Amino acid sequence: MAAGEPTRIMVAVNESTLKGYPHASISSRGAFEWTLKKIVRSNTSGFKLLFLHVQVTDEDGFDDMDSIFASPEDFASMKHQNKIRGVHLLEYFVKQCHDIGIACEARIKNGDPKEVICHEVNRVRPDFLVVGSRGLGPFQRVFVGTVSEFCAKHAECPVITIKRSASETPQDPVDD
Amino acid sequence: MAAGEPTRIMVAVNESTLKGYPHASISSRGAFEWTLKKIVRSNTSGFKLLFLHVQVTDEDGFDDMDSIFASPEDFASMKHQNKIRGVHLLEYFVKQCHDIGIACEARIKNGDPKEVICHEVNRVRPDFLVVGSRGLGPFQRVFVGTVSEFCAKHAECPVITIKRSASETPQDPVDD
Repeated sequence: MAAGEPTRIMVAVNESTLKGYPHASISSRGAFEWTLKKIVRSNTSGFKLLFLHVQVTDEDGFDDMDSIFASPEDFASMKHQNKIRGVHLLEYFVKQCHDIGIACEARIKNGDPKEVICHEVNRVRPDFLVVGSRGLGPFQRVFVGTVSEFCAKHAECPVITIKRSASETPQDPVDD
Repeated sequence: MAAGEPTRIMVAVNESTLKGYPHASISSRGAFEWTLKKIVRSNTSGFKLLFLHVQVTDEDGFDDMDSIFASPEDFASMKHQNKIRGVHLLEYFVKQCHDIGIACEARIKNGDPKEVICHEVNRVRPDFLVVGSRGLGPFQRVFVGTVSEFCAKHAECPVITIKRSASETPQDPVDD
């Protein structure tokens, strides 16, 4: 119970899928706020948050761009835009931690989120992992898959899944 | 981040299945110690632990008793013995909390542990639930079932499952 090393909490975060809303997803913001309120509380020196944002290279950036790729530079430009959005996302979380006075780190990785999160858990060895979840029913889950479920099963550390509250669920619950 | 109400953590605990070891199971003791070390830390006034021990009425007490039931009193006596063991189990956890100075409550219920835990979550509304797990492989799980997996899926609050460490696994990993 002595001070010692802070508890290292990995928090997986992603972007909202809502059009025209270039911010954190509702569920990842919820998971972050829950962690502060229910775990960290006033003990800011006892914890360190390790944010992980996994960018899905193949899907990102096509939604609202209608892009035509005519040259290698177009691809480079798209990748650059993705990166900017990822950095913007992490800045949101890091800034809040900074304001509260809790230590944090943030990293962006590319790949399949569920695979990359489990891989990073192995590499970084957090004390536990927090993931948000849309709280979809079994029928919806079949089609969209859920990162949280995969991580709860496969990540090599304790995992706590924070479901999005009913009051924050958008019109289409698959959105986030 | 202000003080406010403490975070209420329900901790499901059970007895060891090891013969001649009338104490908490390895996994529930591990889950409790993990919670203190990684979540509560030095912030003892920020949390309240709600211990829940579910006694399996049909199985308990037959292991090492070789009982013959010749009269209704024999059943009453067995129930009494079960109760004593349950109280002894909870005393262990409550005493530790008392020594550390963290608020707690403990209750004993009868029934199917996984069902009762989920029912108590609904009734008591903890902020989250901590359950220990033996960390069995898929093959072993088929035969013994796991309370933690059921709760992670069905409990109406966030659930964190703490796997028993490899170094504490008894000869037969189904034991606990």
